[in-house]
Amino acid sequence: MLSEQCETITVNNIITALGKIQTSNPVIHNITNFVVMQLTANILLALGASPIMAHTLEEQQEIAKISQALVINIGTLDPTWIYSMNAAMNIANQYHKPIVFDPVGAGATNLRTQISQDFLLNHKISVLRGNAAEIMALNNEVIKTKGVDSSHASQDAIIAGRYLAEKYNTVVVISGKQDIIISAEDTVLIDNGDVMMTHVTGMGCSATALIGAFVAVVDDPFIAATAAMATLAMAAELAAKNSDGPGSFQVALLDALFQLKAADYVNLKLNLLDKLV
Amino acid sequence: MLSEQCETITVNNIITALGKIQTSNPVIHNITNFVVMQLTANILLALGASPIMAHTLEEQQEIAKISQALVINIGTLDPTWIYSMNAAMNIANQYHKPIVFDPVGAGATNLRTQISQDFLLNHKISVLRGNAAEIMALNNEVIKTKGVDSSHASQDAIIAGRYLAEKYNTVVVISGKQDIIISAEDTVLIDNGDVMMTHVTGMGCSATALIGAFVAVVDDPFIAATAAMATLAMAAELAAKNSDGPGSFQVALLDALFQLKAADYVNLKLNLLDKLV
Amino acid sequence: MLSEQCETITVNNIITALGKIQTSNPVIHNITNFVVMQLTANILLALGASPIMAHTLEEQQEIAKISQALVINIGTLDPTWIYSMNAAMNIANQYHKPIVFDPVGAGATNLRTQISQDFLLNHKISVLRGNAAEIMALNNEVIKTKGVDSSHASQDAIIAGRYLAEKYNTVVVISGKQDIIISAEDTVLIDNGDVMMTHVTGMGCSATALIGAFVAVVDDPFIAATAAMATLAMAAELAAKNSDGPGSFQVALLDALFQLKAADYVNLKLNLLDKLV
Repeated sequence: MLSEQCETITVNNIITALGKIQTSNPVIHNITNFVVMQLTANILLALGASPIMAHTLEEQQEIAKISQALVINIGTLDPTWIYSMNAAMNIANQYHKPIVFDPVGAGATNLRTQISQDFLLNHKISVLRGNAAEIMALNNEVIKTKGVDSSHASQDAIIAGRYLAEKYNTVVVISGKQDIIISAEDTVLIDNGDVMMTHVTGMGCSATALIGAFVAVVDDPFIAATAAMATLAMAAELAAKNSDGPGSFQVALLDALFQLKAADYVNLKLNLLDKLV
Repeated sequence: MLSEQCETITVNNIITALGKIQTSNPVIHNITNFVVMQLTANILLALGASPIMAHTLEEQQEIAKISQALVINIGTLDPTWIYSMNAAMNIANQYHKPIVFDPVGAGATNLRTQISQDFLLNHKISVLRGNAAEIMALNNEVIKTKGVDSSHASQDAIIAGRYLAEKYNTVVVISGKQDIIISAEDTVLIDNGDVMMTHVTGMGCSATALIGAFVAVVDDPFIAATAAMATLAMAAELAAKNSDGPGSFQVALLDALFQLKAADYVNLKLNLLDKLV
Repeated sequence: MLSEQCETITVNNIITALGKIQTSNPVIHNITNFVVMQLTANILLALGASPIMAHTLEEQQEIAKISQALVINIGTLDPTWIYSMNAAMNIANQYHKPIVFDPVGAGATNLRTQISQDFLLNHKISVLRGNAAEIMALNNEVIKTKGVDSSHASQDAIIAGRYLAEKYNTVVVISGKQDIIISAEDTVLIDNGDVMMTHVTGMGCSATALIGAFVAVVDDPFIAATAAMATLAMAAELAAKNSDGPGSFQVALLDALFQLKAADYVNLKLNLLDKLV
């Protein structure tokens, strides 16, 4: 159920966006990691989008022309792939195709932190999605919180996300038990999903890919990111009811995404937070 | 049911070939794309074949010796892999091991179109499998059709396929709602399968891999390609009955391939078309 | 049921180790092959471990620091990856993190045989896991058996495994219809599992990854390897009861690993063999 404060994003916005994906089948170009490539393609297909995976430098110009969005994910990065990612993002920016970036493992190694910051600095990225640790790692500023209650979500992560949203003029998504979507103006919190998502690889990467599909059909990246996170969370809740463990959950998640309809969003818990949390 | 015209290929041919795969477990060497590697291996195992994935240049000679067929797929090509693919095909030709080639994305980028044409020109390829767009992209000749009814299959694609089959002395498979298998002499149309195949990644690549398994045990690549496409289509029809969406469909497809028996081909709709369609 | 002879390893040891994984979620660093990366990550997550896949040279130092074990698998090796594998193993040895090595395809090509022997020679490897053909290929010594009964397990493979265990001061696991775990002192045979494991790709690689998880929480690599092989075999038996083919088996295997509890080991058939078999 939508909170009363949330006036900018409604379930109707989300349903409309989902319908656009299902009818227009936007082409989403993914340069992503080896672990999740198959799942990413299947998640996008289940939703109604058309995935393309192409990492060769020579192809980036032509692939950009036929794509509606670019998804970059550094889960198994190496120098050759980083080179292609930079080229793809340069071209996507030239063609005004939205970019969604997943800084997998930022904070775990200097390479990933540094590359992620370079990407944010050198390219116009529409949406940045990570978990709390990754988002906090990308923030170089020392941020101190004052003991505020963080029972529902990490205040530190939200503050870091706000900082990144303003610094890089982007939308930041922090996924976790609750998903938080942050723009320079607004913060939305989604309190859905299922714990089984933590027992399957690539759920974060799937969220990023779904944002790619929504940002391809919705002009406002804040609404697109919110719609994507809400869609994945609702599909996950449906899948959890039809599964006995992580194997059957992943199967059921693809089925749920494929069958998703307006009525399935009835339990969506979406709250607009005050900017200055 | 087989049409009366189709005299060269019977369900018995197909069943016999399937039995040969299940008893001899031919080794199929795949140099394929990152997205479908796992599925390709599982599809081949479910059928009864033995998949090997090996792309390193130094290994190609030894792998060719122990393989019964080579499957090449350019879905996520890059220069290093292209180099290995060329080496693998040279060696396969030397050892008279049949090659099946999947020109994923031909027409989408010049690199893919060019590489695919180079492969066809420089190596003896037994079967070329693509969708209609890919097959048409590989045909440099300007082909004009005269408004013939294309309600059942693209006439342009068939004409392009015929041209490629004759030019490169190969069998061409055009997969889609209907699958079309084209040799220099004959054209067979299979009217089976299920729309759910379009919502799972790698179904075309799986078809290509299955052709690899059949071409390993059947001398005539036209029969082998027809048997493979028929087998995948029948398994897909069985799987569609046991699934609720693309997730469960892929699971059920592997189960169906594993359990496939002669009686499952009873609804096979296989028609021999006139050469000059 | 445990044989009476088996005094060093009990089901209690195994259950205790499983509990440690589920509560401490050890980080397992995998440099593995493209075919099984997704499955490997999901197998480790289902068990309760935390997989990391990172192959870039620059990251190896930092990843080693945050990992509790390193799993190396040469299924789709190439020169760049071999270089990273060597670096990762050097660093793991420096930090005293246990290494588990899977010599996929040793014996099939000289490159794989040679690289595997180099790895064993140049690094301290805690557990080596392969099938009988791979283990025998790594043994350069000419070994003759004297017609002993090999109805339950290949005597040649066990002799080769013993030789490697002593030469490289490692634990050798030979997986197959029966799994054999060999140290310099002891040999354990596990007579569980299901034939369906041979129809799904990556079951051997999954075993290796599971050994990685157990070796991260159990000091004795012989006990860790035995616990891992027992766990996979019991999960496979549960999965086989809930599946109709290789597709549903893989799904059920992940569910079974996730739900595994002490009572599920009741049918474990674990026998301590005489050293000099």
